[in-house]
Amino acid sequence: MAKVKNSPSGSVETQFFTFGDNGSNGLLLDCGQRFGPITVAYQTYGKLNAAHNNAILICHALSGDAHVAGVHAEDGRLGWWEIMVGPGKAFDTAKYFIICSNVLGGCKGTTGPASLNPATGEPYALNFPVITIEDMVRVERRLLDHLGIRRLLTVVGGSMGGMQALCWSSLYPEMVASAIPIATAPALTAQGIAWDEIGRRAIMADPAWDKGNYYAPGHPRPEAGLAVARMVGHITYLSEPSMELKFGRRLQHRESYNFSFNPEFQIESYLEHQGIAFNNRFDANSYLYITKAMDYFDFTRGSGDLAPAFQATTAKFLFISFSSDWLYPPSQSKMMVKALESNRQLVYYLNIESLHGHDSFLLEADQQSSRITTFLEEIFSEDTKANLQ
Amino acid sequence: MAKVKNSPSGSVETQFFTFGDNGSNGLLLDCGQRFGPITVAYQTYGKLNAAHNNAILICHALSGDAHVAGVHAEDGRLGWWEIMVGPGKAFDTAKYFIICSNVLGGCKGTTGPASLNPATGEPYALNFPVITIEDMVRVERRLLDHLGIRRLLTVVGGSMGGMQALCWSSLYPEMVASAIPIATAPALTAQGIAWDEIGRRAIMADPAWDKGNYYAPGHPRPEAGLAVARMVGHITYLSEPSMELKFGRRLQHRESYNFSFNPEFQIESYLEHQGIAFNNRFDANSYLYITKAMDYFDFTRGSGDLAPAFQATTAKFLFISFSSDWLYPPSQSKMMVKALESNRQLVYYLNIESLHGHDSFLLEADQQSSRITTFLEEIFSEDTKANLQ
Repeated sequence: MAKVKNSPSGSVETQFFTFGDNGSNGLLLDCGQRFGPITVAYQTYGKLNAAHNNAILICHALSGDAHVAGVHAEDGRLGWWEIMVGPGKAFDTAKYFIICSNVLGGCKGTTGPASLNPATGEPYALNFPVITIEDMVRVERRLLDHLGIRRLLTVVGGSMGGMQALCWSSLYPEMVASAIPIATAPALTAQGIAWDEIGRRAIMADPAWDKGNYYAPGHPRPEAGLAVARMVGHITYLSEPSMELKFGRRLQHRESYNFSFNPEFQIESYLEHQGIAFNNRFDANSYLYITKAMDYFDFTRGSGDLAPAFQATTAKFLFISFSSDWLYPPSQSKMMVKALESNRQLVYYLNIESLHGHDSFLLEADQQSSRITTFLEEIFSEDTKANLQ
Repeated sequence: MAKVKNSPSGSVETQFFTFGDNGSNGLLLDCGQRFGPITVAYQTYGKLNAAHNNAILICHALSGDAHVAGVHAEDGRLGWWEIMVGPGKAFDTAKYFIICSNVLGGCKGTTGPASLNPATGEPYALNFPVITIEDMVRVERRLLDHLGIRRLLTVVGGSMGGMQALCWSSLYPEMVASAIPIATAPALTAQGIAWDEIGRRAIMADPAWDKGNYYAPGHPRPEAGLAVARMVGHITYLSEPSMELKFGRRLQHRESYNFSFNPEFQIESYLEHQGIAFNNRFDANSYLYITKAMDYFDFTRGSGDLAPAFQATTAKFLFISFSSDWLYPPSQSKMMVKALESNRQLVYYLNIESLHGHDSFLLEADQQSSRITTFLEEIFSEDTKANLQ
C-alpha cells in the first residue's frame, strides 16, 4: 500500500466500539471463556438507506484491517481493497452502506494479544484466549447490533474473509441475504495447516518472542521469526509461474554469483523486503492467534460433509476462485458450489483465469467487479421487492 | 531409516579417501579458491569387472550420504536407496560396481563446514568456501581417479543427485556412457530458490547459530532454525493429496481442539518429529552450503537455452519424473528431453504416476526399477560390444 493523495472515497477515519465492559456482557468464546471488554475498530462507507437493506459487511484476510478503502486520515494510506470499494465500484459506496472491521485477535485497533488486559494493566500476550473464526464473526455481529443493522445484503471476503462470510451464513442465517466467499475454503487442508504451523514455529523459535512477552519498552521484537513466517506465507500467496515471470533466476545488482550467503537473487531480496515491511505493520502474537483460528475453521464441523453444513443457511451465494491459487484452489470452491447445488440452493460461481495465485483477489479488479456488481443488483432488487410486498 | 537386521547387500562400511594435502593439488573451486585437503567418504558395492565398464556412480540428494544400501556396520541402519541398490535390484550389485560418496560440503564424512580446518585446528564453519554442484562433481571425479575408474556406465541421482548427474555428463563427457537424472531440473525456479532461502533465513535467525560458530562443546546448536528449515523442505517433498490422505485434519490423541499453541493436528506432530529427527543427523551449516549450491546450479550457465548445454555431452539419457512432484515438476524433465531430442541425442523418458510428490524417487521401487534395469542392460551391452570391436 503506497502513499497516495487521492481516492474517490476521500479521507476516512477508523471508529471504535467497545462492549463487554463488565463480565456478564462479554463474549462467550468457543474455547469456553467469557471474554471482555472488546473494542472493535471499524470503518464505514456510504449511507444506510431507509429500508435498512443496503448494508454490506466486508471481512478482511490474515493481515488486513478495517481500512478497506479511501485515504486514511492518519497515515495517508489507501485501503487494502481500494480496487473494489468506492463510488461506482463493485461495492458501490454511492449505493450501499459498507462496513469493515478489524478482526478479534488483530493488531489494528480491535482487541488482540497486544491490547492491555484491564485486569492486570499489562498486554494480554499469551493470556489472550485462543479464538476461532466463529468468535470473530460473533464480534462482528455485536458491531452490527451497535450500528442498528439487522440484515446484510451481503457478507464478502477473500481468504480468511471468505471463511468469515461462510461462517456468517450459517451462524446468523436470518441476517444474511447473500454471501460472496472469494478464494477461500470450507477448511484448510493438511498442507494449509502445515504452512501456518511453520510460521508459528518460526515466531516461537525466536528468543525475542520470549513466550509472547515482548511488549515492554526496550524489549526486542521477534522480527526474525515473523519475517520467516511472512516469507513462507508470501510464497504460498503467489503462483509459481508469476514468481518465475517476475523474478526468475535474475540476480539483484549483479552479473555473477557473489559466493556468499547474502541475498543476491531478486527473489531473495524481494522476500527480505516483505519480511521487514511486515514487521513494521503486524504483531507476531496476532499472527499466532489468527493463523490458529484459520486452522481451526471447519465449515463442516468435523463431518467433512458440506451439503448438511449449507442447509443451515438461506443465503444466496456467489463463489469466486482463481485458476493459479494453489493455497485455496478452485477445487475447494467447486466442492462448495456442488454441495449447494445438490441442496438446490441458489449459487453462482466464477473461476477467474489469473497468474497472481491466491493474491489475485486483491489484484484482479475487472472480472471480480463486473460479476459482483450484477450479483449485488440481483440480490438488492429481490430484497427490495420482498420488502415492498 | 529404521534399524533393521538384514539386507541382501549385507554389512557395509564407509571408506575414506583424502587428497589435496598440500596446497597445489587441492581443488580449484568455482569461487576461485584452491581448497584442500578434502576427505571423501564413500561406499562401494559389487566388483569392478575386467573390462572396467560396469561402474555406476550414485549421487545423493540434499540430506543423503554415502550409505546408499546395506546395513551399516557402525549404526545398523539401512541405506537410503535400499529399494534400488543390491543383488538383483535395479542397480544390481551382482553385475555392477556401485560407488556412492558423500558430497563436498556435507556432514557425513566428506569435508564440510563442520570439518577441522588444519590451518587453524578449528572447524571451518563459515570459513568453508561457498561451493557449487560442479565442485561436488569435481570431488567425485577425484574419487573415481583414486579408484582407477575412467568411465562410468551410468551416473544416477534424484533431486540434487540428478543435478550432479547432469553436471557429470557435460563436465566429463568422455567418462559418462549414460546418465539417469531423476526428479530433477536444469536449474531451480524462483520458487525453489525461495524455499531454500527461507530455510537458510530460519537457521541464520537462530541465535544459537552464532554466525556459524556453534561447534564448541557446550555451545547450543541452531536446532530450532534447522527444524523450521526441514519442516519447510518436508512440505515441498510431499504432495498436497498425499498429505491430505495421510494426515488430513485429524487430531493427534484428541477428539477436540485444545485451544492452545501446542501441536494437536497430526500434521503438526509429524512436522515436529521431522524437525527433531533431522537435528539428530544433519549439520545446519551444511544445510546452508548445500542449498546454496543447488540455488547456483544452472545447467544452461545462465543462457536458459538447454539444447546447446546438452551438446557438450555424448551420454545417453534416461529421465524419470513423478506426476505429483511440484518441487521438480515433470515439465522440467520434459524440457530437457525435448532439448536432447531436438539435438537428435538418445534420450528416454518415464513419467511415473505417483502420489508421493518429490519423495517418490525414494519410494517408488517397481516402475523405476524395471525401466532402469532395461536401460542399463542396453547401455551395458552396447558398451561391451564397442569394447570387443
